[in-house]
Amino acid sequence: MLDGGRPIAGLGVEGAEQVYRGEVVDLDVMRYRRPGGLVVRREVIGHPGAVVMVPVEDEHVLMVRQPREAVGEYLLELPAGKLDVPGEPPVECARRELAEEVGRSAGALEDLGGFYTAPAILEEYIHCFLATDLAPVAHEPIPEEEIEVVPVPLRDLGALIDEVRDAKSLIGLLRLDRRLRARA
Amino acid sequence: MLDGGRPIAGLGVEGAEQVYRGEVVDLDVMRYRRPGGLVVRREVIGHPGAVVMVPVEDEHVLMVRQPREAVGEYLLELPAGKLDVPGEPPVECARRELAEEVGRSAGALEDLGGFYTAPAILEEYIHCFLATDLAPVAHEPIPEEEIEVVPVPLRDLGALIDEVRDAKSLIGLLRLDRRLRARA
Repeated sequence: MLDGGRPIAGLGVEGAEQVYRGEVVDLDVMRYRRPGGLVVRREVIGHPGAVVMVPVEDEHVLMVRQPREAVGEYLLELPAGKLDVPGEPPVECARRELAEEVGRSAGALEDLGGFYTAPAILEEYIHCFLATDLAPVAHEPIPEEEIEVVPVPLRDLGALIDEVRDAKSLIGLLRLDRRLRARA
Repeated sequence: MLDGGRPIAGLGVEGAEQVYRGEVVDLDVMRYRRPGGLVVRREVIGHPGAVVMVPVEDEHVLMVRQPREAVGEYLLELPAGKLDVPGEPPVECARRELAEEVGRSAGALEDLGGFYTAPAILEEYIHCFLATDLAPVAHEPIPEEEIEVVPVPLRDLGALIDEVRDAKSLIGLLRLDRRLRARA
């Protein structure tokens, strides 16, 4: 009953119009035939998937602030990254991105579960990891990313959840909050 | 400090290449000049925004299951809808979509806060509402949507959160969970 997702058995592809092949996204206009026979048109954005990390260190969660031109704002987010190395397992991508974005290695990465970002239009699936047992690592920030690391005390987690406007980060923080409450 | 989002003052647009105008999404390749002078290229998916509702009735949350061809799965989600009527306030859109998708009117719609779905690439901002004081309304389900209403007891909210894979629905359910725990 509580089946969060299950394959659409017998879903057929009646047509696929390639609109765009980009650096980050692709766009195709698809025509699917459902098991019941109805043919539906869908604008589908291709994406390789991503990881988001909830790094906890000394009773702080390590956030990042960065410019998001598509929405015209500097957003406070959890560190994250695209699965842009073919064949790289999500947990290795998480390790790599954590080093790149916040300059930490993680002794433990625990899978908190994943989710589709916008399943009506976007293929992206994000794997979410709790990162603990952190240690500094040498890293070369990518200048274009203009990432500022913002450690936030766990005692301010409620206020942080009220402020954050990025979906993947909200999910990571709300999952952390749920876990901390369960332990309290 | 805990500033979830703030405008990028002085962000300039150096170039805009229109790639696609669709029924649901648009695609543009943009070149922005940041305040510091760096010009960055971004693939930007235009979207009018959306609403997601957390409808609670008789100690149940009303979920919907529907086919999401873009990811090839039937997903269990909260009811939601696009802001596709120009000028319609989000709360009115929430009211309309709640009637269309689950056949309920809401005596109370409380704003739980909004979020960007995928701010690196997608303009979509989703407004999230807690819907209570529900009553049945006449409604004509849209056959193409093939929406099945799935009421889930609030006592199973934890199991539901572990199952759901749709980002907007996870945020709505985790916010509901947080609120119920704060009241307990």
